[in-house]
Amino acid sequence: MNTIRVNTSPAYDVKIETGLMNRLGSELLAVLGKTCKIAILTDDTVDGIYGRRIEENLVESGFDVCRFAMPHGEEHKNLQWWGRMLEFLAEQHLTRSDCIVALGGGVPGDMAGFAAACYLRSIAFVQVPTTLLAMVDSSVGGKTGLDLQQGKNLAGAFYQPRAVFCDPEALLTLPEEILIDGAAECVKYGILDDEPLFALFEEGQWKERMEEVIARCIRQKAELVEMDEKDRGSRQLLNLGHTFGHAIEKCSDFGVSHGKGVAIGMVMAARLANKLDICDAGTLDRIVRTLQNMGLPTWTEFEPAQLLAAALSDKKRAGNKITLVLPERIGHCELKPIPLDRFAEWMQLAAQ
Amino acid sequence: MNTIRVNTSPAYDVKIETGLMNRLGSELLAVLGKTCKIAILTDDTVDGIYGRRIEENLVESGFDVCRFAMPHGEEHKNLQWWGRMLEFLAEQHLTRSDCIVALGGGVPGDMAGFAAACYLRSIAFVQVPTTLLAMVDSSVGGKTGLDLQQGKNLAGAFYQPRAVFCDPEALLTLPEEILIDGAAECVKYGILDDEPLFALFEEGQWKERMEEVIARCIRQKAELVEMDEKDRGSRQLLNLGHTFGHAIEKCSDFGVSHGKGVAIGMVMAARLANKLDICDAGTLDRIVRTLQNMGLPTWTEFEPAQLLAAALSDKKRAGNKITLVLPERIGHCELKPIPLDRFAEWMQLAAQ
Repeated sequence: MNTIRVNTSPAYDVKIETGLMNRLGSELLAVLGKTCKIAILTDDTVDGIYGRRIEENLVESGFDVCRFAMPHGEEHKNLQWWGRMLEFLAEQHLTRSDCIVALGGGVPGDMAGFAAACYLRSIAFVQVPTTLLAMVDSSVGGKTGLDLQQGKNLAGAFYQPRAVFCDPEALLTLPEEILIDGAAECVKYGILDDEPLFALFEEGQWKERMEEVIARCIRQKAELVEMDEKDRGSRQLLNLGHTFGHAIEKCSDFGVSHGKGVAIGMVMAARLANKLDICDAGTLDRIVRTLQNMGLPTWTEFEPAQLLAAALSDKKRAGNKITLVLPERIGHCELKPIPLDRFAEWMQLAAQ
Repeated sequence: MNTIRVNTSPAYDVKIETGLMNRLGSELLAVLGKTCKIAILTDDTVDGIYGRRIEENLVESGFDVCRFAMPHGEEHKNLQWWGRMLEFLAEQHLTRSDCIVALGGGVPGDMAGFAAACYLRSIAFVQVPTTLLAMVDSSVGGKTGLDLQQGKNLAGAFYQPRAVFCDPEALLTLPEEILIDGAAECVKYGILDDEPLFALFEEGQWKERMEEVIARCIRQKAELVEMDEKDRGSRQLLNLGHTFGHAIEKCSDFGVSHGKGVAIGMVMAARLANKLDICDAGTLDRIVRTLQNMGLPTWTEFEPAQLLAAALSDKKRAGNKITLVLPERIGHCELKPIPLDRFAEWMQLAAQ
């Protein structure tokens, strides 16, 4: 088993092992040190596949378990469904000594984590991510939240789980498209700071070495999060491809998935970096080819002006600057703050 | 001016001075160190009295100001109105460099503070409380939140303001009933740890010495909060009268106000303490007489069984214990954890 310690306050472990979901009860008992009431918060799709199995496993270990499933999909990552989660916890009389299991992809994970952060002004929770994206991204770092009408993840909290349990076996039940979507985020970690990881994708070996891929991504994310828990500095590197990617998602009314948006966004960042003489054409080319070979898009039909409008409402804005992440080479990127009045020009350079 | 430093992380100042509201702009500029966009979040009653005046004052100091008023009253301290606050902040494009002014009594204060805690995963806010209760209680300590259908303050966050500005002049516009309601909470501080403060109420001098009353209460609350920011230990002392009080409020469907509930609750706690030989009959008598002279109730018609059911859903429960605060004498109280299975019996003792 790969165990990665995340030294936030408080610290916690991310465990990665095939079959982990089948012994969640004993793992949870080891983390919490006692039995208690557990609310499993998930979505209907994941609940249909894992809900009952996990509930039974937890009951066998002595936990008192209840379960709540929201409808799946980003369109339900909103205040209404979050409110229903909170009301469910109150109806089930969870106390501050109890615990939430956030089970599923990024949407139920972020929502359940945010519910744990705010119910009774915070109770314990653990993450059990079931998608690649949730494993390598949203389950580490303590970012929880939901979407407002004005944009994605505009409300939320920084709140650390007590533990994260990643079972790569869960990825076997994922549709190919969702798996590849998460893989885009893994390529990001390669470009940022791990050329050997990038090479696994470049050489088409990533599916056979899934446990290693997950562990390498999480290890890097954990290091960045430890350095910068509140996302004001170096953690911003994790936004590689995301400023452009979010703009594309938004322009498509979220018809373009997160991973696809990030894939195109990384290419735009690399193109801009190349035009600004920050990286060479070979680096741009390696990124484009690798993503294409994985079956990810590298080009968007939205106009720079449309993307600009969408990007300006992004929350990564702080006052009158936007900070972009630009690759220097595979395995190294830099933060580049841009004054708002020059952003239109750079968007042009990035787009074509 | 009285300035009280609250050494939470981060630390902040509570300033108490008559006329403070008329120079809020310069005070805020001193705290933030720069101008920015300000969202004033308040309720319709307070907005009608102070909204425009404060907005103009802030604009004069160079801030860009927008204003949102929710309807007044505890029944609007819910997820729906909190969601509208968040959407308003997003519509106004507030960024992480901007600031919220939480203006009003406990309801808009708690809601606006919670909105500040969660919007973009937290932006800066200051409190400008306009009721006595909000000044001495909810504006210090970082407790923010809202009510769920199952009970009061069941969702929220610990989130510290950048500063609190208390202007006793604001109390002049309060109806007598609301003022006395807040005074019940001040008596609580006297019983807990400040006999001279209790004496101001016992001897009927509190209205003439309002600035002193506010400062003494806030100083004590600040000390308790500093020792125990996350409310797991000694800060629980602040719950004196609140476990019973909340139960009364709930049984009355919130027809009984918070201050009245706390007044009756303090008498119940003192009666229980007396029966358990923790305090003498004289202490109980001083508390009853003082509250009666102030015009506060000291008796409820709800049956112990009704109060018990309401109290059992209170969030101060942790597992199978409830911690009560019991007075030993005026100026000293103790925490008393009670096993759930003995709580019915103690409720009987407290009630009659």
